[in-house]
Amino acid sequence: MQETHEPDAKGPAALQLRRVAIDTYRENVAYLHRDCEVYRAEGFQALSKVEVSANGRRILATLNVTSDPRIVQCHELGLSEDAFAQMGVLPGHPATISQAEPPASIAALHRKINGERLTREDFHAIVRDIAEHRYSKIELSAFVVATNRGELDREEVFFLTEAMIASGRRVDWRERLVVDKHCIGGIPGNRTSMLVVPIVAAHGLVCPKTSSRAITSPAGTADTMEVLANVELPFDRLSEIVREHRACLAWGGTAELSPADDVLISVERPLSLDSPGQMVASILSKKIAAGSSHLVLDIPIGPTAKVRSMPEAQKLRRLFEYTAHRLGLSLDVVITDGRQPIGNGVGPVLEARDVMRVLENHPLAPIDLRQKSLRLAGRLLECDPDIRGGDGYAIARDILDSGRALEKMRAIMAAQGAKPFDHERPELGALSFEVVAERDGVVTGIDNLQIARVAQLAGAPKVQGAGVDLARKLGEPVRAGEPLYRVYAAFPADLEFARLATQRFSAYTLGDAAEVPHVFVEF
Amino acid sequence: MQETHEPDAKGPAALQLRRVAIDTYRENVAYLHRDCEVYRAEGFQALSKVEVSANGRRILATLNVTSDPRIVQCHELGLSEDAFAQMGVLPGHPATISQAEPPASIAALHRKINGERLTREDFHAIVRDIAEHRYSKIELSAFVVATNRGELDREEVFFLTEAMIASGRRVDWRERLVVDKHCIGGIPGNRTSMLVVPIVAAHGLVCPKTSSRAITSPAGTADTMEVLANVELPFDRLSEIVREHRACLAWGGTAELSPADDVLISVERPLSLDSPGQMVASILSKKIAAGSSHLVLDIPIGPTAKVRSMPEAQKLRRLFEYTAHRLGLSLDVVITDGRQPIGNGVGPVLEARDVMRVLENHPLAPIDLRQKSLRLAGRLLECDPDIRGGDGYAIARDILDSGRALEKMRAIMAAQGAKPFDHERPELGALSFEVVAERDGVVTGIDNLQIARVAQLAGAPKVQGAGVDLARKLGEPVRAGEPLYRVYAAFPADLEFARLATQRFSAYTLGDAAEVPHVFVEF
Repeated sequence: MQETHEPDAKGPAALQLRRVAIDTYRENVAYLHRDCEVYRAEGFQALSKVEVSANGRRILATLNVTSDPRIVQCHELGLSEDAFAQMGVLPGHPATISQAEPPASIAALHRKINGERLTREDFHAIVRDIAEHRYSKIELSAFVVATNRGELDREEVFFLTEAMIASGRRVDWRERLVVDKHCIGGIPGNRTSMLVVPIVAAHGLVCPKTSSRAITSPAGTADTMEVLANVELPFDRLSEIVREHRACLAWGGTAELSPADDVLISVERPLSLDSPGQMVASILSKKIAAGSSHLVLDIPIGPTAKVRSMPEAQKLRRLFEYTAHRLGLSLDVVITDGRQPIGNGVGPVLEARDVMRVLENHPLAPIDLRQKSLRLAGRLLECDPDIRGGDGYAIARDILDSGRALEKMRAIMAAQGAKPFDHERPELGALSFEVVAERDGVVTGIDNLQIARVAQLAGAPKVQGAGVDLARKLGEPVRAGEPLYRVYAAFPADLEFARLATQRFSAYTLGDAAEVPHVFVEF
Repeated sequence: MQETHEPDAKGPAALQLRRVAIDTYRENVAYLHRDCEVYRAEGFQALSKVEVSANGRRILATLNVTSDPRIVQCHELGLSEDAFAQMGVLPGHPATISQAEPPASIAALHRKINGERLTREDFHAIVRDIAEHRYSKIELSAFVVATNRGELDREEVFFLTEAMIASGRRVDWRERLVVDKHCIGGIPGNRTSMLVVPIVAAHGLVCPKTSSRAITSPAGTADTMEVLANVELPFDRLSEIVREHRACLAWGGTAELSPADDVLISVERPLSLDSPGQMVASILSKKIAAGSSHLVLDIPIGPTAKVRSMPEAQKLRRLFEYTAHRLGLSLDVVITDGRQPIGNGVGPVLEARDVMRVLENHPLAPIDLRQKSLRLAGRLLECDPDIRGGDGYAIARDILDSGRALEKMRAIMAAQGAKPFDHERPELGALSFEVVAERDGVVTGIDNLQIARVAQLAGAPKVQGAGVDLARKLGEPVRAGEPLYRVYAAFPADLEFARLATQRFSAYTLGDAAEVPHVFVEF
């Protein structure tokens, strides 16, 4: 019913567009003067959702009303920085403003809030409205909470995933085999993608990896790769890089893949929500939109991982497999050891250092990061019909040990725009402190969540050089007074927040060697 | 851990407070210049939750960052209008800003999102944080959705209600008997309070009625009373009025009763959410905080009412009774006919007209509004131990017919500050149109939701004279071309929105006399 927005034959009076230099992050805000004739005539209220049209473009925004003519004058329509940029016009361009009708899918949202099952059409309508920014933050969080945990059955998860794919562009690489790997997250330092991608690309598989930035963690693959190279590339450039090098390691946000997912994350992040249904829809929609045909998925389990038991991991595996199958994606789920962080560094610079050490076969390279990456790369190599099941690991190891993986990584970095980075002297936060063992013992537990929280409080991922550098891992002996880890920060306030958190709980438990928890995972 | 906010021994540098003339409704917004030293040093992000302190007061706000010195300069800290008013200082007052730690009750919120049962302490912690504006809109909607429908058991509803009472002030009228009536809502035009209150007050019962404004309806009692008198009175003045006249009819918002509820409503309203648990907690917390000892509660049932069947009404009744009993409130639930709007007018001015006609025993007074009000007033009068069960109705009728109720109403209006209102010539919206019957027949259905929606689209309650005036009620015959109702609006856009809605569905169904739905309700 778009025509109902302009009931008046001549349409609402035009105002002059003005860029208001206020950064409201991802929330579009429109500013009207309290004495603006249009404001009075239309009977708007502050915080109304309005529709702003100019130059054939249309955006939705929240209305703020001002009485300060230095912000907007009566004949002007102000837009916050991002919103103004979306209109693609110069200041002073004529624009109209009207009440936004509530999104058509709100009725379906209400049914989901009331616990009903939704249809394929419902999910498509909701996801389309979300992708078009028609939902308010309140409505988005209602959707996220209402579809949390057991509230979506597996066919609904498939519908949601399919709708999220349909909401964005879908890449066709014109290749028979496009491989990718992904981890469900929750393990600090787990930067295997930055090793798996160059290994499989060196073998010749196409692996155009687009990653997210950190959602609830101290660093995502995109944040860490950004230490080494530019990750925000226009899609056409990414495409060239993949054609030439068989791979890339970029941020997925610019590719317009699954845009509804990006909007949902803006609410899931502050709520720290990551339910199975949303996780499956988010991961698989992005992978399919990115054109993957084969995916190796890493589900770590451990007492402080996202998944805490084998039955839970198996249940999640089945949900991934069901959805992937319905979408025609070949999926190989690998359940891995998630009892502690992977590698030593947690935070963009520290993780980039670990990755480069593994690629260079450096004596200080973290062995667990190397081993896990080789195993995942091996599984991915076995997507190649010419490789016999079981042979992948040895091939991956040869590629890494021979330096071919490093060479491929350097080529990818150069293509994306390499940044100066010396992993022997990484640029860490200038402020730091050490957390030491209070007694002699063996490390029997490292709390992933607390390590992540300390690294975040210290400033990661926003401050690249902030984070945590682990000195001891599970099963290692330590004496009273010896370091467990060091925390790096750039700002005094961050350092103090992190220090207080470590004083409440260091994240380490010490005990006898026999108390180290076992883990039984396949490989 | 408040002390962690200022880790630096000398504390963060002070900025000068500035009132930014932007109305952000109920959302506190703080504005910093992008080049402000504090902003850079603290590593804030746009949309961060920050804490602003000045003059011993502390508020939480969302941070917007600007590069326009006309909004704030580098040494200034801007606050949106409401936020500035909360600080109670003059412009230029020194103020500090720091990162706000996430509210302590967020862990409990997450447990509720994951479907766990919460304890009494959890509810108190959550409600306290909500009342102190520590929750973001996203967190508020997560709470509202996670506690929706079956997600709260009855003891949790009691905990929530109790916590909401504890979050605000509680009135003590120093009277043995303080009576009140309340309707769960959903029936347009249902303005019985404005008749029940003067009737029972004329009898001598204390009835200090504080009402809400419309939440999801075209008019609340406060909106309608506002046509006749001032409803926003300081609490001390209300108190005087009640001492002198035994009653008042005021807006509850200024009384600081159950402030957490006011915050939750800001999210429930855009989501149109009104689950049983939240309804019980909202209504009973306000009544108990307002000092009521006896409450008559009206639950209308009908095909388009909030409650659609007798079993559902009985279930809701039991939840109200359980919670009221645990809180020591004497509660009498009355299940009433909710098949259609009550009275003829829907919208503040039209409803005020109906109320005054009933009080004046006017020949055009809507009979259903009169009868329902007398019945509810009768039940409430029976709270008086001197009145025998069953005698209340006749006493209420005598009070109304004799003009004593009108006299009491005039006294209350005068005390609150009467406004000029001539119900023979009410000031209706200047624009109007009629919706007519398309065929001959008997009215077999009137959709409450559609009538409410049309009245809202026409501008009610914000435009007092906007709304719907019904010409026919259930069971009445009508001929093709005769009017069903008239819609009033003040703005052309509103009128067109309303007209389009009536064209999609008039809200009326016509048929045979035998098809009029029956209703079986006690009285």
